Amino acid sequence: MQNFTYHNPVKLVFGKGSIKQLADLIPSGTKIMMTYGGGSIKTNGVYDQVKNALRNHTVIEFGGIEANPLYETLMKAVELGKKENAGFLLSVGGGSVLDGTKFIAAAMRFEKGDPWEILASGAEVKSAVPIGCVLTLSATGSEMNGFSVVSRKTPTEKRAFASPHVYPQFSILDPETTCSLPKRQVINGIIDPFVHVTEQYLTFDLNTPLQDRQAEGILLTLIDQGPKALQSPKDYDIRANLMWCATQALNGLIGCGVAHDWATHYIGHELTALYGIDHAQSLAVVLPGVLRHQKARKLQKLAQYGRRVWNISGLSDSDTADQAIARTESFFRSLGVATTLTEYNIPEESGRLVADRISGRGEMLGEHQAIGKKEIREILDLCYRNELAHP
Amino acid sequence: MQNFTYHNPVKLVFGKGSIKQLADLIPSGTKIMMTYGGGSIKTNGVYDQVKNALRNHTVIEFGGIEANPLYETLMKAVELGKKENAGFLLSVGGGSVLDGTKFIAAAMRFEKGDPWEILASGAEVKSAVPIGCVLTLSATGSEMNGFSVVSRKTPTEKRAFASPHVYPQFSILDPETTCSLPKRQVINGIIDPFVHVTEQYLTFDLNTPLQDRQAEGILLTLIDQGPKALQSPKDYDIRANLMWCATQALNGLIGCGVAHDWATHYIGHELTALYGIDHAQSLAVVLPGVLRHQKARKLQKLAQYGRRVWNISGLSDSDTADQAIARTESFFRSLGVATTLTEYNIPEESGRLVADRISGRGEMLGEHQAIGKKEIREILDLCYRNELAHP
Repeated sequence: MQNFTYHNPVKLVFGKGSIKQLADLIPSGTKIMMTYGGGSIKTNGVYDQVKNALRNHTVIEFGGIEANPLYETLMKAVELGKKENAGFLLSVGGGSVLDGTKFIAAAMRFEKGDPWEILASGAEVKSAVPIGCVLTLSATGSEMNGFSVVSRKTPTEKRAFASPHVYPQFSILDPETTCSLPKRQVINGIIDPFVHVTEQYLTFDLNTPLQDRQAEGILLTLIDQGPKALQSPKDYDIRANLMWCATQALNGLIGCGVAHDWATHYIGHELTALYGIDHAQSLAVVLPGVLRHQKARKLQKLAQYGRRVWNISGLSDSDTADQAIARTESFFRSLGVATTLTEYNIPEESGRLVADRISGRGEMLGEHQAIGKKEIREILDLCYRNELAHP
Repeated sequence: MQNFTYHNPVKLVFGKGSIKQLADLIPSGTKIMMTYGGGSIKTNGVYDQVKNALRNHTVIEFGGIEANPLYETLMKAVELGKKENAGFLLSVGGGSVLDGTKFIAAAMRFEKGDPWEILASGAEVKSAVPIGCVLTLSATGSEMNGFSVVSRKTPTEKRAFASPHVYPQFSILDPETTCSLPKRQVINGIIDPFVHVTEQYLTFDLNTPLQDRQAEGILLTLIDQGPKALQSPKDYDIRANLMWCATQALNGLIGCGVAHDWATHYIGHELTALYGIDHAQSLAVVLPGVLRHQKARKLQKLAQYGRRVWNISGLSDSDTADQAIARTESFFRSLGVATTLTEYNIPEESGRLVADRISGRGEMLGEHQAIGKKEIREILDLCYRNELAHP
């Protein structure tokens, strides 16, 4: 096991009816800037619940944060927040609103130069406005970590930052708020955590049996509960289980002491930036390609994954690994999501473009930092050819 | 799933060589009272590592905190800490030293009456001196929670309290410090977390598949790594895995949203108070009795436990449950720990005494609060008779 430090100060308030605890979670007398997305919270009742809970607080609003939140939009919120002297940011929405709010929180306190440098060059975040979260879409795990991913229109970019200052002080997770999500979002909420787990699990063995079991537990639960959520969209317990899986997938715990491989996310971010496909859609396409390309390096873990998660028995490690990757891709497809670039009509040049963008930043991917320009092209080539398996 | 709140602010610093980070974890200028036990830290090098790391801090010492830390001892530390105006308590040792230090921290700030009331009548802990921990024996999970168990000589008592104010600010977990532990302590460090898990897992089903998998993951890892630790006491990775299991077993995570049954701990505490057997020894005796007595209520989870953790197949739920309990008891015995009261020469009156003590406080035990005076006696009767299975 590798040495690690784990510190996660987020207070999670989980369960039905928990939004009403908001009033006790934010100090009265603090001016709150409430951030949200396209307005679905106004039709599903969440907006009213939040406003009612905060009826004795001063609340200003910034709506319109889009999926893959845009720097251009967020900087308007930074301006508003500064002008109004907001002392607390309350994110009401899914991972995009929360990621955007984390950036707003850091940018409001960023004193030297353009806050885009937090994303572009890792400029240090020295402080941030305190953040709270009411989560209405479980997928990204942002509710219990200090990560944020922000996009930019001009030039087209999608970049991440991390800071201990942007952990939410609290996150309210009421599974009932997710029962009205469109099917596509529910599917995204299964695939994103699934891939978060594989990226902390399918690497190489460092003798970490508990972390392995914890990772497998999340995958087994997603495989079991995901399809049920699509069949029974209003079932509270199923939604609660998916929500809890998404939080556990990226709260840092299963990543303690193990090797990480975020290649799928890095490549997926570029596909979203360039071609606009959903984040989770990009992951469902890229993960099978990464696993096939890196099979030799990941063989031991892939075989363990096949046996423990997919119940494959009686095959060699190599055949078990192949089967496990195929089962993963079939699982994604069974949820109704495409797993090839061809299906999204993404032009064949994507491999070259994505490889150039990532290697142009000097980044090497994978748990061995062995995925460079050539390998990224090869992986994306596989992501077109995957379709041969799905005539 | 039940509603829950989860908030665990402990910063964990895990791995070999991590004690040297102490200097950065405690503000300089703060007067530290270092607490420890019987002095093993002076022979295994931990004392020197701590003192060296804190050579630029002011440190006073309070040693001699015993296993099952005594109120009488701890109150001397309270007196010293107040007199010296200690602003930070650093626990260096295992769960007993840390539990004792949590009590000292709360008692130093307790203003109304006798601090024993924190344990006896749940008097509110309104604040506590900040605590840090260097853990040298992994078992209790105290390093990542706000629980503490303290004993008293006159009258003989063993009681627990919980407070958000006594979470350690940080806990340093260096598995190397556990490599010199005597075998009995290693065994205790397998059994205590094992039972912590079962008490949050073997109750009734609330549709919590992820929590179940997480619990099973800890049990599977303890069953795999525990015997290896006894065979290879110096193996770092095995020690690291056991240490991580112990922390995960009682940091609150697997207990989120599920039913709890702490009957084994409650009954075990009384056996330790009355007869002086080790905490973990008491658990190894009581757990099989609780599970046998409560089999009907726990049937579904016991059967799941048998199939997933012990790999029992082809039997009815009832037979699987019986087998699972027997396998649990055999596992404890395989580690070299007794599982009957007879083996500890505990007089047959223990059932009556323990039942009187617990019911005398008006406490009902178990996930249904259905274990009262009569049931406790029946359970302890089983704990004598268990031996029939082990001629």
